[in-house]
Amino acid sequence: MDAKARLARKRSLVERELDRLLSPQDSLLHEAMRYAVLSGGKRFRPLLLLSAGACFGAEEKMLIPFACGLELIHSYSLVHDDLPSMDDDDTRRGKPSCHKAYGEAIALLAGDGLLTLAFEVMASAPVPRPLLTQKEEVIAETARLAGPLGMIEGQFLDISTPAEGWTEGRLQVMILRKTGALIMASVRAGAVLGSARASALEAVTQYGKYLGLAFQIRDDLQDVPAGHAQAGSQGPNYAAFLDARKAKRTMKEYIREALRALERESLRSPDLCYLASLLDRIKD
Amino acid sequence: MDAKARLARKRSLVERELDRLLSPQDSLLHEAMRYAVLSGGKRFRPLLLLSAGACFGAEEKMLIPFACGLELIHSYSLVHDDLPSMDDDDTRRGKPSCHKAYGEAIALLAGDGLLTLAFEVMASAPVPRPLLTQKEEVIAETARLAGPLGMIEGQFLDISTPAEGWTEGRLQVMILRKTGALIMASVRAGAVLGSARASALEAVTQYGKYLGLAFQIRDDLQDVPAGHAQAGSQGPNYAAFLDARKAKRTMKEYIREALRALERESLRSPDLCYLASLLDRIKD
Repeated sequence: MDAKARLARKRSLVERELDRLLSPQDSLLHEAMRYAVLSGGKRFRPLLLLSAGACFGAEEKMLIPFACGLELIHSYSLVHDDLPSMDDDDTRRGKPSCHKAYGEAIALLAGDGLLTLAFEVMASAPVPRPLLTQKEEVIAETARLAGPLGMIEGQFLDISTPAEGWTEGRLQVMILRKTGALIMASVRAGAVLGSARASALEAVTQYGKYLGLAFQIRDDLQDVPAGHAQAGSQGPNYAAFLDARKAKRTMKEYIREALRALERESLRSPDLCYLASLLDRIKD
Repeated sequence: MDAKARLARKRSLVERELDRLLSPQDSLLHEAMRYAVLSGGKRFRPLLLLSAGACFGAEEKMLIPFACGLELIHSYSLVHDDLPSMDDDDTRRGKPSCHKAYGEAIALLAGDGLLTLAFEVMASAPVPRPLLTQKEEVIAETARLAGPLGMIEGQFLDISTPAEGWTEGRLQVMILRKTGALIMASVRAGAVLGSARASALEAVTQYGKYLGLAFQIRDDLQDVPAGHAQAGSQGPNYAAFLDARKAKRTMKEYIREALRALERESLRSPDLCYLASLLDRIKD
């Protein structure tokens, strides 16, 4: 099997488990949670976690609940970010956003529910006794990176920085928290559960950091119509800020940095390389 | 020391640790989180957790992070419940509610931050190696009881049931989830970390269940001005529903049931008894 086929198989394992975790209940709250998670999504974070874990020989079955936990956290953050008091987005992945489909109150509770469920799923994950310490480390670290000094701070900076307050450095700090923190948490979780040695864990962390930056710039580039300096969507946009050509160069540089971090530690992971290369496939 | 003095000492330990966990940062997000947690509150859930743990000989220092985790979850739920799309409450404990003081977007993020921090604090709590299984059980169970089949479902029932849809039975189910689940989680966490045997854990669970019901009725009674059948605040109100005299009788019956559950297993805990008796001190 090549990387593409391996990742497609991993993705279907994650889809099946997410579907099971969010089994239908006779309640609009649970319907809204299913809607938020099962209406598409690339499952990029679960794939990173599973690929990083595989790189260190962790058992795939053991990793699945953590991969789902990361995706549930990502999904909750999208539901809350879309709310009227935040980014006020009416659509998500080409469909009505959760609050447009279910109302604001239910979307708020669905987001709370997904975040709480993420920790239930990770804390209930069966791991062999010698790995219990790694398991609690992964849960604590995921909470820290998703929390008020990580992803939530990133979202706070995004909505609270005045338009004239952005510099390239501030934009980078915001992206590293808002997008980078959870991507870093994903690769680190896989590596920690694979009992990676300290230097390899650091290499994977650097990979995650640069990948997170590249990921967000790519997202921003896709929001800027060709030939326009301004972004279509609200909020600061890296591509609009730097101009699209420079942003694309920066993105490619970050992807190379991510791969270099793995090479320096001689970590051979065709799947992590493939996931990085996916970001590079952007129309010129 | 008597129960009152012991509980006052426990309360000050919790206050000090909450203050440390929410140490001031130069950011409105963190200020809002401090505001939500450190502006009063009886710390009822932490006291239940610490008292239940003490009843089974658990080390107090080990319990403190879990006690704080429960209080952080309780605090987040109040911040989100007060939001305009939910109960739309302008005040909380006699002060402006979090979104009135900091705006809706920051209050939403502060709530998310408190919930995520709760799991970071619990997952980072140092426990002796033989207790790692109990620790993960407590985290998983707290998430389940606080989650979309527990507290969040209770809030969902509260806001989505039409006024004419309430029966005494439905009101009880809603209260058991919205208020009871987290109170049950608190006493169970203490007992599990104290390695309580199955029958004692079940007794403590029953104590928590009846205490949760009594707690909510008491709250509802205080919302109904003497001589009025209707509640001052919005939403279904047990006291208004049953009439205040019958509600008071029911509340006292639940407190007795809570104490009986402990007695049946011969669990001697003056502090758990004192906490139950506090609910009973209501003006006639």
